[in-house]
Amino acid sequence: MRAAAMKNWELRVDDVEDPVPGAGQVLTRVLACGICGSDLHMLRFGREMRELMQQIQADDPADSVSVNLFEPEHDCVMGHEFCCEVVELGSGVTNLETGDRVVSLPGAIDESGAHAVGYSNRYPGGYGELVVLNELIAIPVSADVPSSIAALTEPMAVGMHAVNKSGIVPGDAAIVLGLGPVGLACVAELKRRGIGPVIGADFSAKRRGLAEHFGCDEVVDPNSETAIAAWRRVDGIKPLVVFEAVGMPGMIDQAMKMAPKDSRILVVGVCMPQDHLLPMVGNTRELSIQFVFGYTPEEFVETHQVITAGGWDLAPMITGTVTIDGVPQAFADLGNPDEHAKILVQPA
Amino acid sequence: MRAAAMKNWELRVDDVEDPVPGAGQVLTRVLACGICGSDLHMLRFGREMRELMQQIQADDPADSVSVNLFEPEHDCVMGHEFCCEVVELGSGVTNLETGDRVVSLPGAIDESGAHAVGYSNRYPGGYGELVVLNELIAIPVSADVPSSIAALTEPMAVGMHAVNKSGIVPGDAAIVLGLGPVGLACVAELKRRGIGPVIGADFSAKRRGLAEHFGCDEVVDPNSETAIAAWRRVDGIKPLVVFEAVGMPGMIDQAMKMAPKDSRILVVGVCMPQDHLLPMVGNTRELSIQFVFGYTPEEFVETHQVITAGGWDLAPMITGTVTIDGVPQAFADLGNPDEHAKILVQPA
Repeated sequence: MRAAAMKNWELRVDDVEDPVPGAGQVLTRVLACGICGSDLHMLRFGREMRELMQQIQADDPADSVSVNLFEPEHDCVMGHEFCCEVVELGSGVTNLETGDRVVSLPGAIDESGAHAVGYSNRYPGGYGELVVLNELIAIPVSADVPSSIAALTEPMAVGMHAVNKSGIVPGDAAIVLGLGPVGLACVAELKRRGIGPVIGADFSAKRRGLAEHFGCDEVVDPNSETAIAAWRRVDGIKPLVVFEAVGMPGMIDQAMKMAPKDSRILVVGVCMPQDHLLPMVGNTRELSIQFVFGYTPEEFVETHQVITAGGWDLAPMITGTVTIDGVPQAFADLGNPDEHAKILVQPA
Repeated sequence: MRAAAMKNWELRVDDVEDPVPGAGQVLTRVLACGICGSDLHMLRFGREMRELMQQIQADDPADSVSVNLFEPEHDCVMGHEFCCEVVELGSGVTNLETGDRVVSLPGAIDESGAHAVGYSNRYPGGYGELVVLNELIAIPVSADVPSSIAALTEPMAVGMHAVNKSGIVPGDAAIVLGLGPVGLACVAELKRRGIGPVIGADFSAKRRGLAEHFGCDEVVDPNSETAIAAWRRVDGIKPLVVFEAVGMPGMIDQAMKMAPKDSRILVVGVCMPQDHLLPMVGNTRELSIQFVFGYTPEEFVETHQVITAGGWDLAPMITGTVTIDGVPQAFADLGNPDEHAKILVQPA
């Protein structure tokens, strides 16, 4: 099949072997797959991160972090935000039929264990034409939900999970730093729950406009006004939760320096290189920092239910579509994100 | 009066002006005052920390961190863990008499606002002969509690506060990194509440012995076995809270690298220089980091009640006593903490 594959930390479009569904699995063709910032980071920082993680595991062999997701010297087709159509049933599949459209947690289970679809040499993700999924965790997409919207289940679930882990309740206020897809997912979920004010910060006018589309009460260009100054201007009283959704070095430090005493910081962005902070700032303000990652299966299902019920108007988030051949250029475009939120890969 | 005073980030023993009690205040003579690691850090890192905090305030003038505790070019008599005897009553004092022994939160309130006793040019702390305290927050010490033990109220309250903020409950396990006075206070409070196993780690045999005295279930010399390996050996199942009580660069990183998925890290040590961490480790394990600082007035009172009721056998924590003239040498000795936990200053 045609696929944008990563090998030796480089991305290229090539023909790779078709995946084959095993027992309880289905072969699907990708209808739409969102390009995730994590994949840009993986390409840029993956080698360094892999070395760091291997060092941690060498220091502590009983460590719980799995680092052997994929071998970098073999093809890894990334892409974990997909909506697919079933084209072939593996043995024992009874609840899906060819032609069904599905979304799924990007995980595959077989006799060798669990695999991360999109970060695996064995299970290619949605930047290729074909994906193998397990029937057990595939969710049928209802006829009135376009594939492009259904593909946003995964990134929106990241926002729902972050909001759940924050413990935020009506009566609290929120700042969201970074209005890329993850920051927008946080804004959309915060506003769906009636939290306010929500203050969003991003250098991109396009992304600030999208945050307003999701009901963000105030948006700021950090070149003109800091998020915390905007919060003081419009509120300044309610308990504050700061969602860090940029995931680059220096952002946790920035969030800590702006956070008022006793506030919470949710680290939703995933910063792969080493980062710095001033612990003293954390101590004197008694800050709490909750790191988050992914979502639970229940949250994935609930997110898809919200999408199906029309809980968010997600279409404006999609700022571009490319074929598989266009994936490397889309990665380059997302490196300069002024004009983009979510770019979808549509192989067909 | 005689005092060990800090000026221009140097500590020397000298004659300084006697403090004078204002309305609602009492003049006291210091019976015992513990030397706190924060004071060693203040001497070593205070200049750098002050510059960092001033930068934060310059970037964000509405910031809530007060940095003007004292002017470094004037005398600052540190020492905030004291038990004192009232020697003179200011105007309007009705509930204290000369001869009363008291402990107090190290804060003074007057017409100019709130001051941190021990980090103030105006209110000298317990490394001098005389301290001024507010009647309102002074707690009489009962006759059967020695002054040396009563002076431990403050550091023990730090441990109680950290344990309270951790939300730890019986059924959870704890690791305490660093068994200096703050780490020991955490161990003592965890064991008083029936938490177990508690695993303590310190390079000093003396301090490990003290942790065992307070009921620590396992103690490790990190040169021989890591704390997390010891936890896996004796438990490895219960939800884990890691108390970081060293307060030096690299400790948060170390705590994050050892912490299992979903665990909490309580940062009790106060690291003044810039520090580093790997956010990715926090994300993939969904760690939470709660920074803590000090204690509430209620926790200070409760701690003193526990001490009065004999809830902890604290005498072995006191590993040395010095007069005021011996304070600089005691600071030097605590820089190499193998033989020490708490050194008390006894001016008389």
